[in-house]
Amino acid sequence: MTSPSETRMGGTRATRRYDPDRKTRIVEAAVEVIAEHGVAGTTHRRIAAVADVPLGSLTYHFAGLDDLLAQAFRRHAERMSRDYEAHFAGVSTRTGFIDAVTDLIHGLSDDDPRDWAVAYELYLAALRDPALRSVTELWMRSSRRVLERFVDPTTARGVDALIEGIVMHKTLSTTGGATRAETRTIIARILGETT
Amino acid sequence: MTSPSETRMGGTRATRRYDPDRKTRIVEAAVEVIAEHGVAGTTHRRIAAVADVPLGSLTYHFAGLDDLLAQAFRRHAERMSRDYEAHFAGVSTRTGFIDAVTDLIHGLSDDDPRDWAVAYELYLAALRDPALRSVTELWMRSSRRVLERFVDPTTARGVDALIEGIVMHKTLSTTGGATRAETRTIIARILGETT
Repeated sequence: MTSPSETRMGGTRATRRYDPDRKTRIVEAAVEVIAEHGVAGTTHRRIAAVADVPLGSLTYHFAGLDDLLAQAFRRHAERMSRDYEAHFAGVSTRTGFIDAVTDLIHGLSDDDPRDWAVAYELYLAALRDPALRSVTELWMRSSRRVLERFVDPTTARGVDALIEGIVMHKTLSTTGGATRAETRTIIARILGETT
Repeated sequence: MTSPSETRMGGTRATRRYDPDRKTRIVEAAVEVIAEHGVAGTTHRRIAAVADVPLGSLTYHFAGLDDLLAQAFRRHAERMSRDYEAHFAGVSTRTGFIDAVTDLIHGLSDDDPRDWAVAYELYLAALRDPALRSVTELWMRSSRRVLERFVDPTTARGVDALIEGIVMHKTLSTTGGATRAETRTIIARILGETT
């Protein structure tokens, strides 16, 4: 017979071995490593270190580094999609929509360079590996579905492309790119509003 | 005293050693290697092989791989800028401009995946290395200057961002992205035209 305290200790060890969140933690760690080092610098060793798991865990849970990278990209895209949807949750008017798109563009490009680093790593990887385009296709569909609450499908495509292009050009600029006022004018124009 | 034929042979050898195009050829080779293998797979050895020069040539002409990559990206951006400018050279009407932008988007994304691979490699590299943003900034300025022959500066920013975003989303899609008709509608809208 074991004492209550031994049972608890055993239980703790068993929980640690069973560790139901381990796979998720490894995928999250892979996202962090991609953000920090790029796909080119992402290794099993670095991911295991960030996830705080033994190297063998990676080969147990994933078919290989490509599988793990694909799951990391998918997870990142899903999180970005949820954030995108949440951003428009309370919007009900046309003006509110223009403001929300403008906020998204200027918030996105100012706040989260790591999120964009992972997104651009995904874009480049998808350009070379068509299998990853299932991730980018789902991500784009999800964004358009949110925008289609406010505008027709063609305009939604245009707004989504504008968000992508303006954020990207801000990121690539030495002078900050479009101002909020310019962005707002451009967005209003594509919605057919004259400002 | 040497015979004329010996002089000629000597001259040929000297020309081969002097080789005024060698530096350019190395930079062009670097662009090809980036297109094929990405920045991550770009090595001195691969560039020297494509340029057909000895490895030592690379260290003679360039401060290091980063210097050579930066010059390759600059060369690619300059060539893309010239192509962009040439594309709009004969355009004089508003309708002609809308057609030219539409052609550019659908031609760009269908024809030259290698050019876009190099561009996206540059974007990602510039995200991590601010020094490369001088290349992307010049490239964006050059594009906007062309568009500003037809539209005001804010609209030029919007059109340039739309071209970037639509081409990128076509590249990332499993279903081909925007159709020509959708693109044309979106471009006309941002110009304030109702179609």
